[in-house]
Amino acid sequence: MPQQDRAYATREAILHAAAEEFDQHGYERTSLTAVLARAGLTKGAFYFHFPSKDAVAGALVERQNELWAELRESWRARGADPLSALHGMFAESADRMAADVVLRAGVRLNAEREVGYPGVPNTHVMWEKLIATYVAEAGERGDLLPGVDPEAVARTLCSAALGARLISSATTACADFPKRIREVLAHVLPCVASSRWKLSGSQKTPEGPDGP
Amino acid sequence: MPQQDRAYATREAILHAAAEEFDQHGYERTSLTAVLARAGLTKGAFYFHFPSKDAVAGALVERQNELWAELRESWRARGADPLSALHGMFAESADRMAADVVLRAGVRLNAEREVGYPGVPNTHVMWEKLIATYVAEAGERGDLLPGVDPEAVARTLCSAALGARLISSATTACADFPKRIREVLAHVLPCVASSRWKLSGSQKTPEGPDGP
Repeated sequence: MPQQDRAYATREAILHAAAEEFDQHGYERTSLTAVLARAGLTKGAFYFHFPSKDAVAGALVERQNELWAELRESWRARGADPLSALHGMFAESADRMAADVVLRAGVRLNAEREVGYPGVPNTHVMWEKLIATYVAEAGERGDLLPGVDPEAVARTLCSAALGARLISSATTACADFPKRIREVLAHVLPCVASSRWKLSGSQKTPEGPDGP
Repeated sequence: MPQQDRAYATREAILHAAAEEFDQHGYERTSLTAVLARAGLTKGAFYFHFPSKDAVAGALVERQNELWAELRESWRARGADPLSALHGMFAESADRMAADVVLRAGVRLNAEREVGYPGVPNTHVMWEKLIATYVAEAGERGDLLPGVDPEAVARTLCSAALGARLISSATTACADFPKRIREVLAHVLPCVASSRWKLSGSQKTPEGPDGP
């Protein structure tokens, strides 16, 4: 294997091993020693790729951000209406997180940062704004019931998605996150969508790996 | 002040000072020294009341449980229908938490335990079961739309309430929690309630301290 590929493979092995440890034990209680043992690597190999445990954690959080950028682009490319895109992105992100420990670890690390350091760089506000733009766009198209406040819908969806992933993580290691996120969507979107949107049928998102 | 009252006052002073510290810094980064400095007490006074930092944290979590027991009893005594009682309990608990650092600290400590120790004594499952009994009872009375699954509603409400309090805590020190929890209720309950319940008008809960 060329040297560049080998370096890439080692970096991925570190990320995967660290993700397994962070996912199970959280940031504070994950030791570099355990990560190295799991990856079968030396400290030297580790420090060639990452300056610290914090740097690996940062890379894992970054993966999660990349996932969302990818999902946004994918649903834009499909030409989905805004509410259907929201439904699809929430559902797909849950499917991917349930299946991939690297994404899941990013979620947990983010959650720990959010709980542990209130006030610090706040991703919630950013997320709520992003989701609100989709809902507002739906309103402009006539896909919302009269009087629906896009920002309130965004706050409700972001709260429910955060809570769903934390509870799912704490109770089933995220196995039921796909089901939980679809329940959230099914209990909120019909409350705010106009019959025009509901009748269009465009909101159909494939069921999760385990069905509805 | 009689000795018993003084002991009670000291215990409350410790709880309050610890709540302020936990609320701001979380469990791990709160030191006993900071708690004592805030309360103006010696280590001896502290250890007379609590064997450890963990014991104070446990007492604060217990306060939150007592709040819910009290709210349940209060809404039962009012003879509210189950959905109205749910609405009232969620809204009132948010009002009380926003106003009282002792309750807020309990919430944060609980959240940290939940995030930090997945699998360990799980309060989520207990909460979801409790909320589901209210929703199921509403169904038996004809207050739900046909086909509504009480457990799915309970999971959605618990997720959204947990997420709302974490986001509110991280962004506004819980100041907007009363508003956020009412938004959640307004975006979920009308989705599942029958027109019989909606027309009964019994779901009216007083607005939070800051209005709707």
